[in-house]
Amino acid sequence: MRFELTVLGTSSAIPTKTRNLSAQVLNINEKLFLIDCGDGTQLHLKRSSLKVNRINHIFISHLHGDHFFGLIGLLSSMQLLGREKEMKIFGPPGLDKLIFNQLELTKGGLDFQLNFTELNEHKAEELVNESDFVISSFPVKHRVPCWGFLFREKKLPRNIKKHFAKQHEIPIKMFNKIKNEGADFTDKTGVTHKNEDITTKPPEPRSYAYTADTVYNPEMIQYFQGVDLLYHEATFGEDKIKEAKEKFHSTAKQAAGIARDANVGQLLIGHFSARYKDINPLLTEARSIFPNTIAAEDGMTCKVNRKK
Amino acid sequence: MRFELTVLGTSSAIPTKTRNLSAQVLNINEKLFLIDCGDGTQLHLKRSSLKVNRINHIFISHLHGDHFFGLIGLLSSMQLLGREKEMKIFGPPGLDKLIFNQLELTKGGLDFQLNFTELNEHKAEELVNESDFVISSFPVKHRVPCWGFLFREKKLPRNIKKHFAKQHEIPIKMFNKIKNEGADFTDKTGVTHKNEDITTKPPEPRSYAYTADTVYNPEMIQYFQGVDLLYHEATFGEDKIKEAKEKFHSTAKQAAGIARDANVGQLLIGHFSARYKDINPLLTEARSIFPNTIAAEDGMTCKVNRKK
Repeated sequence: MRFELTVLGTSSAIPTKTRNLSAQVLNINEKLFLIDCGDGTQLHLKRSSLKVNRINHIFISHLHGDHFFGLIGLLSSMQLLGREKEMKIFGPPGLDKLIFNQLELTKGGLDFQLNFTELNEHKAEELVNESDFVISSFPVKHRVPCWGFLFREKKLPRNIKKHFAKQHEIPIKMFNKIKNEGADFTDKTGVTHKNEDITTKPPEPRSYAYTADTVYNPEMIQYFQGVDLLYHEATFGEDKIKEAKEKFHSTAKQAAGIARDANVGQLLIGHFSARYKDINPLLTEARSIFPNTIAAEDGMTCKVNRKK
Repeated sequence: MRFELTVLGTSSAIPTKTRNLSAQVLNINEKLFLIDCGDGTQLHLKRSSLKVNRINHIFISHLHGDHFFGLIGLLSSMQLLGREKEMKIFGPPGLDKLIFNQLELTKGGLDFQLNFTELNEHKAEELVNESDFVISSFPVKHRVPCWGFLFREKKLPRNIKKHFAKQHEIPIKMFNKIKNEGADFTDKTGVTHKNEDITTKPPEPRSYAYTADTVYNPEMIQYFQGVDLLYHEATFGEDKIKEAKEKFHSTAKQAAGIARDANVGQLLIGHFSARYKDINPLLTEARSIFPNTIAAEDGMTCKVNRKK
């Protein structure tokens, strides 16, 4: 099952010659989830290999323009392309008004429904629960209400060993009990086979967390402890640690501290201030604390790999 | 004096892999004028060699998103970059409300003033009058109120021949009369020199017209008769002439007919429907009517040359 992230924009606040504004797409088994939607996101989607009509859920972390000004353009283009399917949008209170106001003032009706869900400022909340994965939001600390998002695969059932299933006639009801409940199996001759002998362990469920914009805040670790991949903003380097705090952003090193303390598998840093033409110093700072760190680049796709 | 156009986006309605949404910058003697501002325009400005802080005037032709959804992002980035100078914005009624609403809902105050001027739906109107050029708007016919813009250099004064100015002491007051009013000059010895003998003709003033989105409409020729460069939309080819009319757009051939009948110097076609992967057939159709036609490409800069 595919579980991979494509990063469309990695610049904070303003775009640069090489970095677009915040937007990412998580592909879970060919369902696409758009996370933030800075100005111009529809262009970068168009120029990627991602299929826009597979996006049915959009998550907006906060109401700073570099994270959502591209939403109205994307929705309008979806309308022009004949979209009929409902679009679920999860975002801060007021986002619905912003979008509907613009649609009204431009007389730009949509033929598909927009279904807005306001995020909860006080606690983590489940947003989407499908057969194979769950998506939730958690509050982070920024200058305005802001949320991170957590994407978790569900635990898969155990697999019955093929040669055992072939040798024995296992009733369907029993089949499910063995896979999902760890039941043992007694065959026709009265012999009982222990579950651990006749099944194999499924692969561990994978998980991805996106912190959006946040000041260094160990309190939020509870929400994504042990995830396989963590995207943590790293707007500044250690040279600007004071500015990071004042502006409710993080340094690369702080991001790495969070990754280490949350015991994540891999750290992806991004949302770099336009002042850093070369982000290698930030990467070096982060790796000094958490070696398995990579720096986000526009257009990169990375698989969410299971923690070793 | 520089008088040149940079095209930032040439796709209609939705962006394609190679064409952005409508936006252009006219450079008149290092003053930059932004004409339309589709989603993502701030990125394309950033990636051009144009200096964003030299833009003090923005012209929005109509309230279809592909022509203005990038405006709020551009203004917000200008704020982040420390802009203090007033920005003059010329656009349809309601544009001010759209922008102020978004600034209010996102608590995104600006430290520079936005000065909105509503365009006149009934007649051409002068918008900007500076020492060396004049900018005006004219109504065109589209599904919603829509305007074109005309940029004209002012007529330059005649030049007094250098050797004559050296030979004779010409009082400043007389100097200006000779240059601007065609006055003759009587020298100290009482000899009168005819204006045409002592001056040379200045270069002809140049002009550029932008039609925005419009159905084929010969009535608008009055507004830009004889311009040096005309940008006329050519959303469709002749294969879609019916669709062009229904959607209040033009074909490339119709654009060329307007260019011919308006006796312009050069025609630049753009705003191509995303259905045309190759726009050469449209260019061929236009050239069959008006040979001096070029097709707009994203990022191209073309000098506005005087008509031959």
